Amino acid sequence: MNKGHGANIFKYSKSGDLLDFSSNINPYGPTERVKKNIREHLDLIARYPDVSYGKLFDVLEKYLGVDKTHISLGNGAMEVIDATISLYENIVIFEPAFMEYEIRARVQKKNIKKINLDSSFKPNVHDLDFDLENTLVIITSPHNPSGVSLSKKEFDEIYEKVSNNGGAILMDEAFHEFSSVDYDLAKEISKYKNLFVVRAATKFFSLPGLRLGYLVSNFKNDIDNHIPTWSVSSLVENLGEDLLLDEEFIISSKAKLAKSRDKLFLELKKIDGIHPLPSDANYILIKTDFDNEMLFQNLLKKGILVRKCDNYANLGHQYIRVAVKKDEDNEKLLKALKEEKNGR
Amino acid sequence: MNKGHGANIFKYSKSGDLLDFSSNINPYGPTERVKKNIREHLDLIARYPDVSYGKLFDVLEKYLGVDKTHISLGNGAMEVIDATISLYENIVIFEPAFMEYEIRARVQKKNIKKINLDSSFKPNVHDLDFDLENTLVIITSPHNPSGVSLSKKEFDEIYEKVSNNGGAILMDEAFHEFSSVDYDLAKEISKYKNLFVVRAATKFFSLPGLRLGYLVSNFKNDIDNHIPTWSVSSLVENLGEDLLLDEEFIISSKAKLAKSRDKLFLELKKIDGIHPLPSDANYILIKTDFDNEMLFQNLLKKGILVRKCDNYANLGHQYIRVAVKKDEDNEKLLKALKEEKNGR
Repeated sequence: MNKGHGANIFKYSKSGDLLDFSSNINPYGPTERVKKNIREHLDLIARYPDVSYGKLFDVLEKYLGVDKTHISLGNGAMEVIDATISLYENIVIFEPAFMEYEIRARVQKKNIKKINLDSSFKPNVHDLDFDLENTLVIITSPHNPSGVSLSKKEFDEIYEKVSNNGGAILMDEAFHEFSSVDYDLAKEISKYKNLFVVRAATKFFSLPGLRLGYLVSNFKNDIDNHIPTWSVSSLVENLGEDLLLDEEFIISSKAKLAKSRDKLFLELKKIDGIHPLPSDANYILIKTDFDNEMLFQNLLKKGILVRKCDNYANLGHQYIRVAVKKDEDNEKLLKALKEEKNGR
Repeated sequence: MNKGHGANIFKYSKSGDLLDFSSNINPYGPTERVKKNIREHLDLIARYPDVSYGKLFDVLEKYLGVDKTHISLGNGAMEVIDATISLYENIVIFEPAFMEYEIRARVQKKNIKKINLDSSFKPNVHDLDFDLENTLVIITSPHNPSGVSLSKKEFDEIYEKVSNNGGAILMDEAFHEFSSVDYDLAKEISKYKNLFVVRAATKFFSLPGLRLGYLVSNFKNDIDNHIPTWSVSSLVENLGEDLLLDEEFIISSKAKLAKSRDKLFLELKKIDGIHPLPSDANYILIKTDFDNEMLFQNLLKKGILVRKCDNYANLGHQYIRVAVKKDEDNEKLLKALKEEKNGR
């Protein structure tokens, strides 16, 4: 099965020494506090994780603001997404979308229905006007790769439609912490019976290498049954508050990245042939006047890896996506893009 | 679902400072080489693992002696076991058995048939004299909790019977490296079309906290499809030869543990009311003349955690299982058991 993800730095660099704008990871993490915790508790690798993950659940309750009877853990967001898909026969995917939704649904032999997002990368509620019995509708906010967030009103409208038609929603909020939305579905899960909210330490807490995903829902037992015992490592179990309750990191990196993003967006806009889309996340989707393969290769020669978007449905060969990194790195990207434009 | 595993040290000790004979982990690992590797590559936690796991597969090819087109990776043995179960409608389990086989089969809504092992803890080939179409027969060698290994002749007899009756075998060899068997099914996988051999870094390489399982079969694609992308962590991906090709560790810890096991066995036999079973693994099943709950609690007061075996099918309240640890620790167990006996 094609797994042409953004995070393919190993394909292009044996040593991984490229400036990687293809992976949307918070550049301010992992913190020294997190690394120190792992260094000091390295002997935990010789121990099974606590099968009940007591320590981790205590911290997640505080971090997510919801009782642990609503929280499920997984080895990355993928595992909790896979578990949620397992509970329904029909899967609705709004495209373009993270390709793993379809991969997992296919592996599980589900019926898949694809619907196009509207021109502003939002799901149109009128497209959900059909029987959704035993159906899971997957939506994402902020959306990847566009960075567009749904407002609470827009979400509620979709939830109501899906719920009234007999279905459930998987809301993938992998980039939630980067966004500026004024609502928090995880905290309100009791009000949304047929909702699954996916979050992860992967992006905001810069932990794609160790794997920690979590899901908030009213179906904890069904989800947990799907996930093999000990799926989260002992090192992650132990990180606890050093990872998730580090307020200084949470507040400051969110503020810095929002500022860097807005600055990058404005600078990108100034370059001829480069048309960035406003984003509520830590990445920016760019429509270019160029063929993205040539642009990709030229940037690669300069040591810069970006995400080509032609393997996203409905995005043509003119789209790339770039992560927001620290200002000095963003400057390098801007410089390279300007040279590219001038060289043409 | 009941997950009353052996590795429940957290239930009995918040700090985990008990002498743990309940988890069958190689006490000579993880090595300094492994810990140094992790310490020096800690920044990998901020990177997705290589989606193709190229480095890890190169090392596994050498370690297992089989081409990577036969190898699948999982987040611990559990994930590859779960994936194998997913390929069949009917699951045959010989009891007593690792409880996760049944848990995974139930979660996946499979038909489960249980058969008792014979009095020497081996599967009786005559019990497999039925139609095994679309059926996976799970066997374990060395068997857990008895420590009994199958000879090549015994395995072949069972394989032939299962294969002739239309079924497949999952051979769980989680404790393979501790045993003295003179055959290697992983290397011979091409000869065994309907065989799945499960191994893991968990036990022999002392890595239960980080999770690495692997499976050798002729169904790599089907297995891989079942397993979510990036299931193995970057830290593990990077361990490579420092973990799996450390010959000094492999040879010396295997020799030391076999010697310690045989010594422990002989000393256990000398204690009144304690009846150890000969083992080919790094643990010993003991039938006692006592009720195992009282024995368990009394040992716990002395800081020693053993595995009660009454939640294994067909094992009554008189069985405990103890891991083989370093000689000085085994002495403490022997001393405690002798006191227990004298105190009665």
